[in-house]
Amino acid sequence: MNRRDFSFGLMAATGALALPQTQDKLRVNGQRLNQHLAELAAFGKTPEGGTHRVAYSDEDLKARKYTMELMRAAKLEVSIDAVGNLVGRRAGSDAGLKPLMIGSHIDSVPQGGSYDGQVGSMGAIEVAQTLAEANVKLRHPLEVVIFQNEEGGTIGSHALAKGLTERELDLKTNSGKTIREGIKFIGGDPGKLASVVRRKGDIAAYVELHIEQGGILHQEKINIGVVEGIVSVNWWDVTIEGFANHAGTTPMNQRKDALLAAAKYIEAVNRVVTSVPGRQVGTVGKIQALPGAYNVVPGKVLTSLGLRDLDAAKVKMLFERIQTEVRQIEQATGTKFEFKQINETPPAPTDERIRRVIADAAKQLGFTTKLMPSGAGHDAQEIYNLCPVGMIFVPSRDGISHSPREFSTPDDITNGANVLLHTLLALDLAK
Amino acid sequence: MNRRDFSFGLMAATGALALPQTQDKLRVNGQRLNQHLAELAAFGKTPEGGTHRVAYSDEDLKARKYTMELMRAAKLEVSIDAVGNLVGRRAGSDAGLKPLMIGSHIDSVPQGGSYDGQVGSMGAIEVAQTLAEANVKLRHPLEVVIFQNEEGGTIGSHALAKGLTERELDLKTNSGKTIREGIKFIGGDPGKLASVVRRKGDIAAYVELHIEQGGILHQEKINIGVVEGIVSVNWWDVTIEGFANHAGTTPMNQRKDALLAAAKYIEAVNRVVTSVPGRQVGTVGKIQALPGAYNVVPGKVLTSLGLRDLDAAKVKMLFERIQTEVRQIEQATGTKFEFKQINETPPAPTDERIRRVIADAAKQLGFTTKLMPSGAGHDAQEIYNLCPVGMIFVPSRDGISHSPREFSTPDDITNGANVLLHTLLALDLAK
Repeated sequence: MNRRDFSFGLMAATGALALPQTQDKLRVNGQRLNQHLAELAAFGKTPEGGTHRVAYSDEDLKARKYTMELMRAAKLEVSIDAVGNLVGRRAGSDAGLKPLMIGSHIDSVPQGGSYDGQVGSMGAIEVAQTLAEANVKLRHPLEVVIFQNEEGGTIGSHALAKGLTERELDLKTNSGKTIREGIKFIGGDPGKLASVVRRKGDIAAYVELHIEQGGILHQEKINIGVVEGIVSVNWWDVTIEGFANHAGTTPMNQRKDALLAAAKYIEAVNRVVTSVPGRQVGTVGKIQALPGAYNVVPGKVLTSLGLRDLDAAKVKMLFERIQTEVRQIEQATGTKFEFKQINETPPAPTDERIRRVIADAAKQLGFTTKLMPSGAGHDAQEIYNLCPVGMIFVPSRDGISHSPREFSTPDDITNGANVLLHTLLALDLAK
Repeated sequence: MNRRDFSFGLMAATGALALPQTQDKLRVNGQRLNQHLAELAAFGKTPEGGTHRVAYSDEDLKARKYTMELMRAAKLEVSIDAVGNLVGRRAGSDAGLKPLMIGSHIDSVPQGGSYDGQVGSMGAIEVAQTLAEANVKLRHPLEVVIFQNEEGGTIGSHALAKGLTERELDLKTNSGKTIREGIKFIGGDPGKLASVVRRKGDIAAYVELHIEQGGILHQEKINIGVVEGIVSVNWWDVTIEGFANHAGTTPMNQRKDALLAAAKYIEAVNRVVTSVPGRQVGTVGKIQALPGAYNVVPGKVLTSLGLRDLDAAKVKMLFERIQTEVRQIEQATGTKFEFKQINETPPAPTDERIRRVIADAAKQLGFTTKLMPSGAGHDAQEIYNLCPVGMIFVPSRDGISHSPREFSTPDDITNGANVLLHTLLALDLAK
């Protein structure tokens, strides 16, 4: 089924729809939201002021219990699904409608920060609590989902979208447990995973609030990022074969220096990726020279390539241009390159209509907005396989993420939650 | 005392001196020499056909015993000095003259070859045996020295030239033993090291036969290399500080990519070193990118620099030019470089008159010669501090060394030993 043919029965009419007067003035409790974030940060707090709360750890378990209490306080009917996601449900007024889903994750990378995933999770619960306190009944059912183990491969959301394979269940995680063991540890049931798999059409729409993790909004002083989609992520292992030789006795013109070839390659990647307009990125992050001694011309280099863009065709074009450069480097240095693709995540564009709803909600709240890709992966890229998705970004100070120095201001977080609230209200009104 | 003022009483007359008729026709027994090399190679033979015989290992000890037998068969008076060098003495006819010294080493690098050091050691013993069999009595005393642990830092020859410090004695070696333990293991006495230190003037001259370890002689089909000197060896640890960031969310123009800076640096080293005529070499052999992941822009790189040339001033000039390039790379990439010199071995030029004697001896034997630097270190660079030195190179197939694939032909080895023999005879005649 073609992605574009997938009708979800929302927003046949485009443009902003007028909300009832009371709903128009509805705002989340920003102080409470930020208080919840601070309380959540206590689970796995590091001396550097960050958060170490990898999925399936004791700290993760404690944070999940805390989060379930917040969900119950927000009048959500809370359950743990078979894969271990926390699901908070709220009934809608129209029994024929599929649920609107909002959420994110609360697990962190090792030695990470206190905002990634956590802002969207606490923000979604705050939206539910605001609705409950204002006695606003939505037409659609609402599901607030806190997905398990996002950082270890969007496991909880992948289980909804595609299911988990036996191989995936046996993968070891940063907690020391396998995913299978982790699911049991957090209260799921690995034997009943089929029950969590959703079908296309089961969900009306999914919207996720998240920190940008890049520095564009902060640098350009913009309140809200309207996400165009989650980029395609492509990784290759790159092996360069030269010839190891004595660095003292081998003249410069008789060398087959694999590290000199690697240097030319790293520069070529940067040159190719920055040679065309757009927001594509290309990264060489890993490198090892063998044998790796002061006095030996490197005979072999193991390195990498990472390419990301919203447009898979552009990634292909960039890779081909890099290959052309590599052929020249091979000739110039007497070396041989080999590329082995080890990861290829397709792009997950957000729904154009949801983008407009987010942008309109932000504007009506008085915020500046910018349309932008997400360079990082998110649960939304999994849920994209099930329904139209949208993402709302708030600024990350200096673009720092996956670090104890990750930070977003309380005001930016409150703004993001209010945009999520009004996006949800607008989506609920759409036919 | 200035090196140039150091008079050693040899060869006041330049040019070739006529040898007595019998000596002129004297030749080593090439078959026996190559047989000895093959027998020596049995100690520490590896499945790949190379030699693993690190200093102070059981195999080293066995090879030393075998070598002492050969020295005795060559009518040398054999002893083990306090540092563990094997010293074979032969009296001269003129009691007023200082000894002429020849030799090399028999220890190997881990998983090394069967020629490095071994050709010069067996060659020197063969020269002594040839003299003994022909009843040729030299005017000078002869010392054949098999230096211990050349590969681990020219330890045996350094002990003669400079002595060993307590810190050096406590260094752990590839055998697992410290140098102090190693000296005891091979029959030396670490408490009596003062007895082996020689003074300037104690030795008339030192000549070492060695494989080239580079590919110049083999490529240019030349029989004998006349070594101009042993190059200055300079190593730096290089640290590049950038800023680690998410490879997906950090736009190309906001990165401070330490590995991109490293790539530009590696290219700059190659460009600077090859931009001026000469046989200098520059090598970047080590590299580590931190954190070293597919999806993180490297924030820090640990790399290296190695520069070698016979002329210390040229090394300084090259280093300064690299620094100029590095300042530009820092500006272009937003990174910061730091260089820390960790090794600086001064050049050890050979004696010009000994070079001429070697070249004349080779020519009279019908061999082609080439004046060339030694890019690798040798015991001769230590003995340079005590007396005029000379070195004779024979071709290494394909320039491969420190490898099981290290190889020199039996003819080339025999040729080298004959040049050593006739160099010794000529030096002995010089006033």
